[in-house]
Amino acid sequence: MSMKAELINPFLEATLSVLKTMASAEAVPGKPYIKKGSAACGDISGVVGITGQAEGSLCLTFSREAILQVMTSMLGEEQKEITEEVKDAVGELTNMISGDSRRRLQEKGYTFHGAIPSVISGPGHEVKHITKGPVLSIPFSLNGGNFVVEVCFK
Amino acid sequence: MSMKAELINPFLEATLSVLKTMASAEAVPGKPYIKKGSAACGDISGVVGITGQAEGSLCLTFSREAILQVMTSMLGEEQKEITEEVKDAVGELTNMISGDSRRRLQEKGYTFHGAIPSVISGPGHEVKHITKGPVLSIPFSLNGGNFVVEVCFK
Repeated sequence: MSMKAELINPFLEATLSVLKTMASAEAVPGKPYIKKGSAACGDISGVVGITGQAEGSLCLTFSREAILQVMTSMLGEEQKEITEEVKDAVGELTNMISGDSRRRLQEKGYTFHGAIPSVISGPGHEVKHITKGPVLSIPFSLNGGNFVVEVCFK
Repeated sequence: MSMKAELINPFLEATLSVLKTMASAEAVPGKPYIKKGSAACGDISGVVGITGQAEGSLCLTFSREAILQVMTSMLGEEQKEITEEVKDAVGELTNMISGDSRRRLQEKGYTFHGAIPSVISGPGHEVKHITKGPVLSIPFSLNGGNFVVEVCFK
């Protein structure tokens, strides 16, 4: 399966829509690009497996600054640390973006299923997708920091 | 879906079998236990989503010592650092344990599909599964260190 715009846009649109709805966050997407062999690096990530039409994976990786900004808005009070509540909320965001992306893909005739998300925390960790296929990387900027959404399919 | 032995054993057996086949590693399983609210902590992890009969996630989390021991044996020369080759091999192990577990589950009448694995690296990172259900944790020991296999289903 090639990384056609038809498959990319649902993930981009779902990310913007979920962040706006849940956190009133106006993220600005940069230009999506295909990368090989490298990995996302950040302080907290949500990862969820995808199966169905093709096997894949969706990963959101945030800098500490970016997630604390999103969470301050989402949880309604200032967040200064990556607490358990923040980790759970990253899992919830990941689930919602996965679900909204799959709903948008379904409208185009692609059926996918989502697995249970995992949230990884640890300063400067790296997430590498194990696929011979391309990894699509969509950088986003927020006022307070950056994050990246990565999607890959087999 | 409850965490019946019928569902647990295939993951335990697959882990032992794949490590023995790929790395001649005789891992010793400790007592599996159900945990709530905590997370696996280590230096390198392989995570893969599962769908089908139930949605779930499988996660292998290794200490640096444990993975370097496994990889020295698996790759046939002494591994002193967590290199890209080591990360890719952790992805391969995760894929094989996911596949072998699902094959064993299939024999019992449970059909599952595996997503694309992700490999997380970073000293002392934490992997938290986002589910209201139980997380099954199976600790293993090797000569050189410890690792844990975690499985959860919705």
